[in-house]
Amino acid sequence: MITRMSSLFLRTLREDPADAEVPSHKLLVRAGYVRRIAPGIYSWLPLGYRVLRNVERVVREEMDAIGAQEVHFPALLPKEPYEATGRWTEYGDSLFRLRDRKKADYLLGPTHEELFTLMVKGEYSSYKDYPVILYQIQNKYRDEERPRAGILRGREFVMKDAYSFDLDDEGLKRSYELHREAYVRIFDRLGLEYHVVSAVSGAMGGSASEEFLAPAEVGEDTYVRCLESGYAANVEAVTTPAPPARPVEGLPAAEVHNTPDTPTIQSLVDFLNAAELGRVFTAADTLKNVMVKTRQPGAEEWELLGVGVPGDREVDFKRLEASLAPLEVALLEEADFAANPWLVKGYIGPKALIGRGVRYLVDPRVVPGTAWVTGADQLDHHVVDLVCGRDFTPDGTIEAAEVREGDPSPDGAGPLVMARGIEIGHIFQLGRKYADAMQLDALGPDSKPVRITMGSYGIGVSRAVAAIAEQRHDELGLVWPREIAPADVHVVVAGKDDAVRSGAEGIAAELDAAGVRVLLDDRTVSPGVKFADAELIGVPTILVVGRGLAKGVVEVKDRVTGERAEVAADEVVAHLVSLCRS
Amino acid sequence: MITRMSSLFLRTLREDPADAEVPSHKLLVRAGYVRRIAPGIYSWLPLGYRVLRNVERVVREEMDAIGAQEVHFPALLPKEPYEATGRWTEYGDSLFRLRDRKKADYLLGPTHEELFTLMVKGEYSSYKDYPVILYQIQNKYRDEERPRAGILRGREFVMKDAYSFDLDDEGLKRSYELHREAYVRIFDRLGLEYHVVSAVSGAMGGSASEEFLAPAEVGEDTYVRCLESGYAANVEAVTTPAPPARPVEGLPAAEVHNTPDTPTIQSLVDFLNAAELGRVFTAADTLKNVMVKTRQPGAEEWELLGVGVPGDREVDFKRLEASLAPLEVALLEEADFAANPWLVKGYIGPKALIGRGVRYLVDPRVVPGTAWVTGADQLDHHVVDLVCGRDFTPDGTIEAAEVREGDPSPDGAGPLVMARGIEIGHIFQLGRKYADAMQLDALGPDSKPVRITMGSYGIGVSRAVAAIAEQRHDELGLVWPREIAPADVHVVVAGKDDAVRSGAEGIAAELDAAGVRVLLDDRTVSPGVKFADAELIGVPTILVVGRGLAKGVVEVKDRVTGERAEVAADEVVAHLVSLCRS
Repeated sequence: MITRMSSLFLRTLREDPADAEVPSHKLLVRAGYVRRIAPGIYSWLPLGYRVLRNVERVVREEMDAIGAQEVHFPALLPKEPYEATGRWTEYGDSLFRLRDRKKADYLLGPTHEELFTLMVKGEYSSYKDYPVILYQIQNKYRDEERPRAGILRGREFVMKDAYSFDLDDEGLKRSYELHREAYVRIFDRLGLEYHVVSAVSGAMGGSASEEFLAPAEVGEDTYVRCLESGYAANVEAVTTPAPPARPVEGLPAAEVHNTPDTPTIQSLVDFLNAAELGRVFTAADTLKNVMVKTRQPGAEEWELLGVGVPGDREVDFKRLEASLAPLEVALLEEADFAANPWLVKGYIGPKALIGRGVRYLVDPRVVPGTAWVTGADQLDHHVVDLVCGRDFTPDGTIEAAEVREGDPSPDGAGPLVMARGIEIGHIFQLGRKYADAMQLDALGPDSKPVRITMGSYGIGVSRAVAAIAEQRHDELGLVWPREIAPADVHVVVAGKDDAVRSGAEGIAAELDAAGVRVLLDDRTVSPGVKFADAELIGVPTILVVGRGLAKGVVEVKDRVTGERAEVAADEVVAHLVSLCRS
Repeated sequence: MITRMSSLFLRTLREDPADAEVPSHKLLVRAGYVRRIAPGIYSWLPLGYRVLRNVERVVREEMDAIGAQEVHFPALLPKEPYEATGRWTEYGDSLFRLRDRKKADYLLGPTHEELFTLMVKGEYSSYKDYPVILYQIQNKYRDEERPRAGILRGREFVMKDAYSFDLDDEGLKRSYELHREAYVRIFDRLGLEYHVVSAVSGAMGGSASEEFLAPAEVGEDTYVRCLESGYAANVEAVTTPAPPARPVEGLPAAEVHNTPDTPTIQSLVDFLNAAELGRVFTAADTLKNVMVKTRQPGAEEWELLGVGVPGDREVDFKRLEASLAPLEVALLEEADFAANPWLVKGYIGPKALIGRGVRYLVDPRVVPGTAWVTGADQLDHHVVDLVCGRDFTPDGTIEAAEVREGDPSPDGAGPLVMARGIEIGHIFQLGRKYADAMQLDALGPDSKPVRITMGSYGIGVSRAVAAIAEQRHDELGLVWPREIAPADVHVVVAGKDDAVRSGAEGIAAELDAAGVRVLLDDRTVSPGVKFADAELIGVPTILVVGRGLAKGVVEVKDRVTGERAEVAADEVVAHLVSLCRS
């Protein structure tokens, strides 16, 4: 295929678009791959659509290779299945909802667990039918609060979503492993650097789950890695190693101190150290009790929850939310404090909470035998040496404290380092949540129903384009891996005379005949403009046909390494063909 | 590619679905190609999605071949561009509208003229940029009042929409002709029988327009053909040959008759013939005046319009609407008659209308010199011998009367025959409607702006699947043309013994290696079930490997003709490969 720049619907931009902040967004717009239509809603221009379809092809090939079968659901969906699983309300404002002319409720599908479950239920009945893996590549819709970074976080985006259906947990693990391997092959072929990190499943429900994160400064996902062991996890999924419990015998008794005007940890520590109690206190010796409220999704009533974390750490609300999911969580409002006057802001302690029957969860570091400085439940008073397991017994532990660079890896192998990444894939062992909601059973060999167990597996197809652009660009432009580039060779006609032009045309025709995809810059603009556009567009190999042709040479430039080589004009086709096939 | 029925996500049905009335709908559901999700909203199962993608591929190849460039727009679109052209309101209830979390108005795109116009305006500026043809294959949304017949008239459907942008009318004609030729190639490759008929463009605006209609009893479009000349037209586009005007000299004077109790044409004719006026009257001698009201889209006020047609014909409201487009048309309500008491229902005549300044349009057959029996504008009175051009002069003519089988073809070549068809394609010369609305200009060679002229070209991609199924099926099932069939050869393993099974597997593997797409029925069900499913699924060639294999023969069945042939097992691969390539 030869694509001629003289007629290609493409106008590159020299300036970055005003609304773009991240490199992939700037470059994809400047190079004429995408255009903005509305916040988080983009059009694909010819070169961009080619890249998108190339990514789709890679995804499709690897999904087909694990025996997954492609189907296609509508994007416009009736409310009822999503009501059955509660997601009609759980999605909140993120769901695009609409009504048809008969006032029936519809939504634009954010993900299709419900529909796939119902489809399998409609077709399959016997245990002999299973396992089955179905997938689709389709437009998805989420009304993001802050769509950003072009196609990196859009409101309409292309996703591959796959679902596995198995008779038992072992089958689910096999299906999950098949996807994990397919995803590795897909992201390798897409030329992405990525880490597979443990993840919590959030609102999706279910148990085991991993994310494929492409490291990038602009990524929205913070994750940690242990360089020693290779451990990697989403911050929400990091578990805190608990120290061993200690004996309480011999520990000093708890003592309430008048600590006037110490509503913050720092003011408290300063006060205590100034009081010369014979010890030096640090923030890590204090136990900070944060009050939130929780409720079941859709429920009216909130319940109080106390969360105790060491005072040198903040509560990470996303970790807190993930730990409590599917419960909804909110901070207390003034009205809540007014309704519970026994909650003394700045001086809340475990004893009042436990005494009043309020659920109280603590950081895993708060083990029996640890002594804490904490609130004494009255204004300007704290208690010192309040010992866990002796003076108070929490209702359990919770992962809510922030994770920090240098924290120990849960596997004990070394310290954690922090990284940022773009979520490009996510695999879940959903279990029976949707099968339960939709009553998806198979008739077993003993004629008894077997509840099906499911997995769900997503790839952000359009987001992958942005992630690749984010990882593979330089100051001049994009640098596509060949597998998904809009062309194999960008032929620049660098000269106006007929010999150069016809020489370039001849080479392009030969490349085309050999199955090489050619982008031919046959425009009447200056060579400088052509070179700049070639760098910007990012086809992996640039062939410059110019004055050297008279001496029988052309120039081949590797867009990745920047290396230039003079090649004999009569050998360049063979050279490029072998390059493209390697 | 070998697809094994033993693991294919497919369950055929023996019974027609309860909600299906037309053959394509019944068979596509029974054969496991599509499943209903909501009214007019369907999912594609694996075999169905293959067929859909095959149709897409054919469309894409032929669009690319005329130099059209593929882009991809979102389906979720902001209101503003559609407001600029008035279509936000014009579409009425057919438009799916929704609001995002910030209460901004959006719609699900029914067609994308506005967006394409804006995109070209955003990228192009010089006359040197033109012409350009852009297209996309994309989900479209229309909230049909009566979605029906499965995927034949859906509310979410796949459409190829293309748009041409030219500097002048000649360019537009060339682009239009390119599309016409591409459409002929596409529908030929899809194995569709079709007629290209003149069409009016309705709400789309514009001038020349043709529809590609696939003849089918279940089609919603009525059209006419003249077998003698090949003339074909949508009923809305049929023009009525006007008889020559006649001299008014010597015609009897108009005379008002008391015609009590004759509100209908038949009662009037009966009364006049009973009155023995020396002539025999027929309904064709009467002039029926039908009152409607019209207004500009979006306007508040309605205006009265009188439409006069020969009394032996009904007013065809769709023809009337098409003739008056883009005006809105409605029948009069009681309130309208009450507000205009001079309108005497059943006795309305031209004179009162013309006298009151109400616009009055007549059938083209009402030429000067024709004498009519018509209303005398008072209860129980008609006027006889009211002569057009002498006693009344209409404001013009209108194509509003029904078209009937046997009416003369507008080209004078012979009588018209009526047919029903499915609209599978539509090509329009839009002209400058959208370029005007969006101010799409090119800077001409003289530095003056040139307003761009556009064409718009649609193919119902998912509907084409239904149209093919509608035209190509028999009592046993579907009969796909090879180009879009889900497989080339359906291999039926008709026997349980290992020799038969391994023989079939071997042939399937050889076919696969030769690039033939194989659907292999390796299930453990009876041969009868397999044969029935093979007929139902409709792969063009069925290969039966059974007991004959012991004698070295297998059976090849042509699904189209039903012909069966015994072929030597060691020759069948070569035989089938050549069959599939022919």
